[in-house]
Amino acid sequence: MKSKPLLFPQARHYDIIPMGRIGIDLNANEINRPMEETETFTKYVGGSPANIAIGMARLSKKVGFIGRVSDDQFGRFAKNYFNNEGIDISNIIVDNEGSSMGLAFTEIKSPTESSILMYRDNVADLKIDPKDVKEDYISNAKSLLISGTALSKSPSREACFVAMEYAEKHNTVIIFDIDYRPYSWNSKEEVAVYYSMAAKMSDIIIGSREEFELMEALIDPENTSDEVTAKKWFNHNAKIVVIKHGKEGSVGYTSDGSIFKVKPFPVKLLKSFGGGDAYASAFLYGLMEGWSVEKSLEFGSASAAMLVASHSCSEAMPTVKEVEDFMNKR
Amino acid sequence: MKSKPLLFPQARHYDIIPMGRIGIDLNANEINRPMEETETFTKYVGGSPANIAIGMARLSKKVGFIGRVSDDQFGRFAKNYFNNEGIDISNIIVDNEGSSMGLAFTEIKSPTESSILMYRDNVADLKIDPKDVKEDYISNAKSLLISGTALSKSPSREACFVAMEYAEKHNTVIIFDIDYRPYSWNSKEEVAVYYSMAAKMSDIIIGSREEFELMEALIDPENTSDEVTAKKWFNHNAKIVVIKHGKEGSVGYTSDGSIFKVKPFPVKLLKSFGGGDAYASAFLYGLMEGWSVEKSLEFGSASAAMLVASHSCSEAMPTVKEVEDFMNKR
Amino acid sequence: MKSKPLLFPQARHYDIIPMGRIGIDLNANEINRPMEETETFTKYVGGSPANIAIGMARLSKKVGFIGRVSDDQFGRFAKNYFNNEGIDISNIIVDNEGSSMGLAFTEIKSPTESSILMYRDNVADLKIDPKDVKEDYISNAKSLLISGTALSKSPSREACFVAMEYAEKHNTVIIFDIDYRPYSWNSKEEVAVYYSMAAKMSDIIIGSREEFELMEALIDPENTSDEVTAKKWFNHNAKIVVIKHGKEGSVGYTSDGSIFKVKPFPVKLLKSFGGGDAYASAFLYGLMEGWSVEKSLEFGSASAAMLVASHSCSEAMPTVKEVEDFMNKR
Amino acid sequence: MKSKPLLFPQARHYDIIPMGRIGIDLNANEINRPMEETETFTKYVGGSPANIAIGMARLSKKVGFIGRVSDDQFGRFAKNYFNNEGIDISNIIVDNEGSSMGLAFTEIKSPTESSILMYRDNVADLKIDPKDVKEDYISNAKSLLISGTALSKSPSREACFVAMEYAEKHNTVIIFDIDYRPYSWNSKEEVAVYYSMAAKMSDIIIGSREEFELMEALIDPENTSDEVTAKKWFNHNAKIVVIKHGKEGSVGYTSDGSIFKVKPFPVKLLKSFGGGDAYASAFLYGLMEGWSVEKSLEFGSASAAMLVASHSCSEAMPTVKEVEDFMNKR
Repeated sequence: MKSKPLLFPQARHYDIIPMGRIGIDLNANEINRPMEETETFTKYVGGSPANIAIGMARLSKKVGFIGRVSDDQFGRFAKNYFNNEGIDISNIIVDNEGSSMGLAFTEIKSPTESSILMYRDNVADLKIDPKDVKEDYISNAKSLLISGTALSKSPSREACFVAMEYAEKHNTVIIFDIDYRPYSWNSKEEVAVYYSMAAKMSDIIIGSREEFELMEALIDPENTSDEVTAKKWFNHNAKIVVIKHGKEGSVGYTSDGSIFKVKPFPVKLLKSFGGGDAYASAFLYGLMEGWSVEKSLEFGSASAAMLVASHSCSEAMPTVKEVEDFMNKR
Repeated sequence: MKSKPLLFPQARHYDIIPMGRIGIDLNANEINRPMEETETFTKYVGGSPANIAIGMARLSKKVGFIGRVSDDQFGRFAKNYFNNEGIDISNIIVDNEGSSMGLAFTEIKSPTESSILMYRDNVADLKIDPKDVKEDYISNAKSLLISGTALSKSPSREACFVAMEYAEKHNTVIIFDIDYRPYSWNSKEEVAVYYSMAAKMSDIIIGSREEFELMEALIDPENTSDEVTAKKWFNHNAKIVVIKHGKEGSVGYTSDGSIFKVKPFPVKLLKSFGGGDAYASAFLYGLMEGWSVEKSLEFGSASAAMLVASHSCSEAMPTVKEVEDFMNKR
Repeated sequence: MKSKPLLFPQARHYDIIPMGRIGIDLNANEINRPMEETETFTKYVGGSPANIAIGMARLSKKVGFIGRVSDDQFGRFAKNYFNNEGIDISNIIVDNEGSSMGLAFTEIKSPTESSILMYRDNVADLKIDPKDVKEDYISNAKSLLISGTALSKSPSREACFVAMEYAEKHNTVIIFDIDYRPYSWNSKEEVAVYYSMAAKMSDIIIGSREEFELMEALIDPENTSDEVTAKKWFNHNAKIVVIKHGKEGSVGYTSDGSIFKVKPFPVKLLKSFGGGDAYASAFLYGLMEGWSVEKSLEFGSASAAMLVASHSCSEAMPTVKEVEDFMNKR
Repeated sequence: MKSKPLLFPQARHYDIIPMGRIGIDLNANEINRPMEETETFTKYVGGSPANIAIGMARLSKKVGFIGRVSDDQFGRFAKNYFNNEGIDISNIIVDNEGSSMGLAFTEIKSPTESSILMYRDNVADLKIDPKDVKEDYISNAKSLLISGTALSKSPSREACFVAMEYAEKHNTVIIFDIDYRPYSWNSKEEVAVYYSMAAKMSDIIIGSREEFELMEALIDPENTSDEVTAKKWFNHNAKIVVIKHGKEGSVGYTSDGSIFKVKPFPVKLLKSFGGGDAYASAFLYGLMEGWSVEKSLEFGSASAAMLVASHSCSEAMPTVKEVEDFMNKR
């Protein structure tokens, strides 16, 4: 174990700077039917790291963001929305080379059957350029969150690694949210290569069991043990590894050898997606407040339960009081 | 004048086969504001030749279509919609190489100020392949309508020229609806080259004054006279040339030397787009019914007026009776 | 027959402006073996329309050229070579976007077995842009020669059609040398579409039987008759159609109904390629001198025989006196 | 210093497996003039890791190779050449998707002024795919050499990282020859990111001062000290860092704190390139023989001197005896 304990450098302006996808969700209003029969859609800001940014802002953290948006009505909507939430938009570049905001049309066939129709050709979020990444922005943040999908294409991939190099240089905590989306990756080998590289540099790694196995496909393809997985990354820079098992709940490992398990809150589902970003936001909030890993995981789990019962993945992000109220009612 | 009079070959199954764009319109429900503030959108089938197909079907013509749709919920919605309208969908190919339906988000800031936010990367409609075009489908139609935007990219461009070669061989009337959209063309020279090629082969050419000038930019860049324009194309294969002048109305020229002018119907605008496809459908309906060019143009103008007063460009296409009622009320 | 007789407009500066490929041939010095065993290569200017330009210049015609070369040693070599041959290089653009000269490494396994290893990615010659084509250059020429390969890709394809539009407008004789090369075309349908378009606008069409069949694949796929072929193009703008049958010789058809056949000169082959460009040059020279079609074809055939007995396709192009001496020795 | 001493695992079949570029050099025969005036070229196998493979084979080492060649005469020539040199070609894939061998036409204007005209579009060597990399090939080698240019493009980039993951897993010594070529990289940031990643995983790093500065451009942009550079990489996995200073000679640093300087051998230059690959081969040969770093660097320097005095970069690679004879004559 070469890892040192996790420390958020305190005297910095931003609590967290997520980096990566910011897009538009268009959620079906007429639900419990196939999308062919949907008549109207409601527009929200979406994208995993954007949702986490909004989640953290609702939890009253100081939030920045590194990303690109399109030079059109949807791009302006997203920036305005962030600005209204109190998120710093100084490092969100307006792309002037004709890219578009990614779109996610969500289809909710039933509480457990959903699918997403993606528009991801020529998307602004994957145009983040290494030159967009400012060293002093990152040196002024307690943590940097890299969303795995941002590693799937150049130049966004290189921009993320540049950001991580700066974070490493300035002891900014690196959080890697694996967030695997099969579209846009060319091969399983590519996934394994770049996920491993990011994981080696990260202090906190969050993902599902399946995502960790994709990441280890080259170096340890047979492994199915969470403990083996956690130790592997503790041998690099990780201090906390969180592995999610869907309905079974999730497990947090820390580099001092502790293990924490948490079960999902029982809740009436509206849809089967959107919980993960609420989970990450609330969990990271807890860590930043100095809570124990266990308490932080519980808080994350509660927030996730609230999200899967609501129509959006961003607009519905709860405040601290709302999560606490929800937990108290149980 | 080498042109022969316009004759629709009678003993054929299809009255018209439009070829080209079929997409999804997402029209803002909260109108008279910028799209940044739109909250919900309603989904319609859209795209100029698709609108014309629907328009002709509502006017009880037998309609086919040559095009490509995506292999997803939106592609299936479009095919189902056509099928329900009685349009033959046997020559609409489902693209299996990951393309998407084009999207048009419409913003209605005021009755005279509109804009459209397009998603046209990797669109299914521009993937129509020369191999998709069946000679016997075209030889079994009275007319083929080529939408100019379908000429903007390969392989759709070549597919259109293949269709026109077959139409020429079998005396299927070729209708060229210039339908210029600046996105997706590489240069003004390219526009002029391919528009000219299509126009040389066409029997009926419909476009705005600006569109005709784009088409003649290489061979006659100074010309601003409708009459000179019409004569130029009568020297090739054209029998009818319709030139639109917006609020000033439009002019129809025939190769026998006649000229017909028609004014727009006064109407309370909801939006400033969507009229052109209704105009084309109703005008062509008239010609096919054997009406005079003049009466056909009037009928087209009436249908156009009905469309700009309604929320969609396809769903609102009127029946013959509805157009007649509208005209009688004036 | 709507065709008028072929007339080269006399009071013009240039006899001919070929348009299209200009590249580098690297011919194996150690011949009669596979290229794997070749040790050294000799460098020549190559490419069908470039060879024809050199051929016409050697025959003391005034020659221009429309094309693009790379901004490197090979591009400069080609321009210098043309300049030294007396060919006007004012319309040869130096491409500044990183393209390369096409390369053709020739392998001569035996006098009848040859192959060519092509380097044609990102080639300068297919970057000719519509904007490179100057109307007054073409209006100042008696003839424009379009090489079919230049139609295989944008923007060169559109540039050729722009040049043909200008030629049509100014009565510059259009010569279409089909020159089919399978690489770089996407489909047989594409070949048929663009070859047909070019042929419809041309006064003189030269190609092999196979090339004419590729061109007619859509409109008349069953036809194998030279006479039917010739008549088809006489119905458009053609005045002379030359169809080549390899060792069987070639046939020239004229729109007044005459037919001329010519046999190849017997000669000791060094290689099995390079004859066609010499043939075209010398044949066109004859026509421009006012010779009969028959005499012109003979002259072409003699020049072709001289080329296949020599090491290069450009450097070996003969003068009028050399062709005459060669013919007199038979 | 966390580094352990450098150890080549002994019981393995291959001494070294270079990975990356294999191409064709076409060297001007008529030298001391601009290439415009060159008439003939001689063909050799080329490309930095290919040259090193040949160099090591001439020094009687067991050599493998991971790469791709074109499916044509040049690809076959290269494989045959390797095979004749005794290099294992079982992991050289013949690319069947139409790529070409890279070409390097060398221009030797004077002994100190050279330039290279590259053909690198769609090259076979950058098509090495992660799936081409076999774990048991690498586990059966004492060392893997990664050539920096192979990191410049996908999928070759990912294939290299996969190879390095396998090498790390099996304790195969990783040698990183920075070999920076400005063409084919998109930005300085990209260079810095991927060079750093490769260097962090490497046991031996060889490059010029300029190359090390490109690599450190993000993390330590001001540094100009060789010692600071060497220490930085010793903090990761490096055991030996060799920094070249052109005519000033080169310096070898070892992780135990030793420093060795070596001067170039004085020699009559024929050309100003080709020395680096000979240097690397002979230096690595010495290390594998168990020689001191100092003696190995001298041996490398001698071999480099021999190469810059000869016409090719591969064919002229010396045997051990030839290097020794050369050194003894001084």
